[in-house]
Amino acid sequence: MPKFVTAFSNTTVKRLRSLRDKKARREEGLFLAEGLRILAEARDMGRLPEIVAFSSAGGIHPLAATIIAETEAADGEVIETSADILAKMSGKDNPQMLLGAYRQPATALEAIDRSKAPLWLVTQALRDPGNIGTILRTGDAVGAGGLILVDDSADPYSVEGVRASMGAIFTQQVAAARWEEFLPWLRGGPGQLVGSSLKAKEDYLAAKYEQPCFLLIGNEQQGLPPEYEAECDLLVKIPMAGRADSLNAAVAAAVMAFQVKASWRT
Amino acid sequence: MPKFVTAFSNTTVKRLRSLRDKKARREEGLFLAEGLRILAEARDMGRLPEIVAFSSAGGIHPLAATIIAETEAADGEVIETSADILAKMSGKDNPQMLLGAYRQPATALEAIDRSKAPLWLVTQALRDPGNIGTILRTGDAVGAGGLILVDDSADPYSVEGVRASMGAIFTQQVAAARWEEFLPWLRGGPGQLVGSSLKAKEDYLAAKYEQPCFLLIGNEQQGLPPEYEAECDLLVKIPMAGRADSLNAAVAAAVMAFQVKASWRT
Repeated sequence: MPKFVTAFSNTTVKRLRSLRDKKARREEGLFLAEGLRILAEARDMGRLPEIVAFSSAGGIHPLAATIIAETEAADGEVIETSADILAKMSGKDNPQMLLGAYRQPATALEAIDRSKAPLWLVTQALRDPGNIGTILRTGDAVGAGGLILVDDSADPYSVEGVRASMGAIFTQQVAAARWEEFLPWLRGGPGQLVGSSLKAKEDYLAAKYEQPCFLLIGNEQQGLPPEYEAECDLLVKIPMAGRADSLNAAVAAAVMAFQVKASWRT
Repeated sequence: MPKFVTAFSNTTVKRLRSLRDKKARREEGLFLAEGLRILAEARDMGRLPEIVAFSSAGGIHPLAATIIAETEAADGEVIETSADILAKMSGKDNPQMLLGAYRQPATALEAIDRSKAPLWLVTQALRDPGNIGTILRTGDAVGAGGLILVDDSADPYSVEGVRASMGAIFTQQVAAARWEEFLPWLRGGPGQLVGSSLKAKEDYLAAKYEQPCFLLIGNEQQGLPPEYEAECDLLVKIPMAGRADSLNAAVAAAVMAFQVKASWRT
């Protein structure tokens, strides 16, 4: 039976709440996911939380009850609590009635088997965790194998990142590396490195994309550094019809990824 | 010469700061835009702020000086202030050193001349102002004429919306309407209403898009209501390769808009 916890000072409440901070996430190796939909997605992928907090105020969905029971059976910790305390943990006024703390998988580049998918997304120094989560979600939609975070990156395991991923944090493999590590790894096997650049001559609709394709997305403010562009096997241009000279990073990733996929269908 | 203002209690400071709230924006008819890049974009479009606040702590860019001078010449109000006070106004720790309050243009549907662009974006009950701003930015990039916000929508003139638009709030026309107003207006002229739906049979890559094309994007949580889908002249499916059954709203808008545009190029 879960403990019923009403105190903000409770150790588990404090521990879950601390996972909104990057430092605590790194130390604990855990991250927060919220809501039945995402926890069910995790379960479908064979992942159970180490800690679950829930409120039964509005009734408990049978699937939530299953996740709670399985977490207990696996020696996880389960607490029942109030909507107020769940709101404190998630930082939202209208919190989900179920949240879980999951172990962060290892993010070594070496764990990636590039033969498992025709497309991999690679972001460089992305700042906005919401963009990272959105790119994970897009990766899932296009059948990418995962996301490689190059250089200093916002945390995909932040609450905003996990939320924006809509469950894709559990379906997409995530790796992190410096550019100096990524490049030798990439060149150690087959793979076309594709970047988009305003300076490129080749139109993104006319280019030939090879498998596995590694799609490189630059930082929100600066785009790709010139020396990173120079390493690309293919640089393409997305024509811009208006006054702006760039797209939102998650939008650019999606437009490119869907076009790469479309090019393989014809 | 601009007044130098150091007090948070200063009337203009309080007025600018209040524009972070929707109610104040509606009452004043103004909105905030931050940063030289966006203010310069506005100026290129023939728009000057009614109020400018700036800090000269890090020096003043010549273009910023021009905007300040032109605002004064047009009887606008200009205050020089501190980075601290600019931070309070923008709600950011690292604020831009220049911000302006602009008059909101009218958002009547009747002001839209559909013959002016081949593509128009239409969102339904979008909740996230960041998505709306990102969609405006995408609209600029694909040469759309503007964005029609159908039903209760997050505010494109919110700080988050303006920020995400990266200046497109000044280049894209914005209209707002109830569905019951939008539909008769749409049917009063040429226009293909296009929605995307998981239930659709036609692939988005194979569909024939007509001009002017009105691309309808549904709410983040629910997607398009069935009765709205039923009104579409064309319903297309974006194939989903993974486990997720939907894309982020701004991503869906971009993937569709770029495909519509691509289909006209071939």
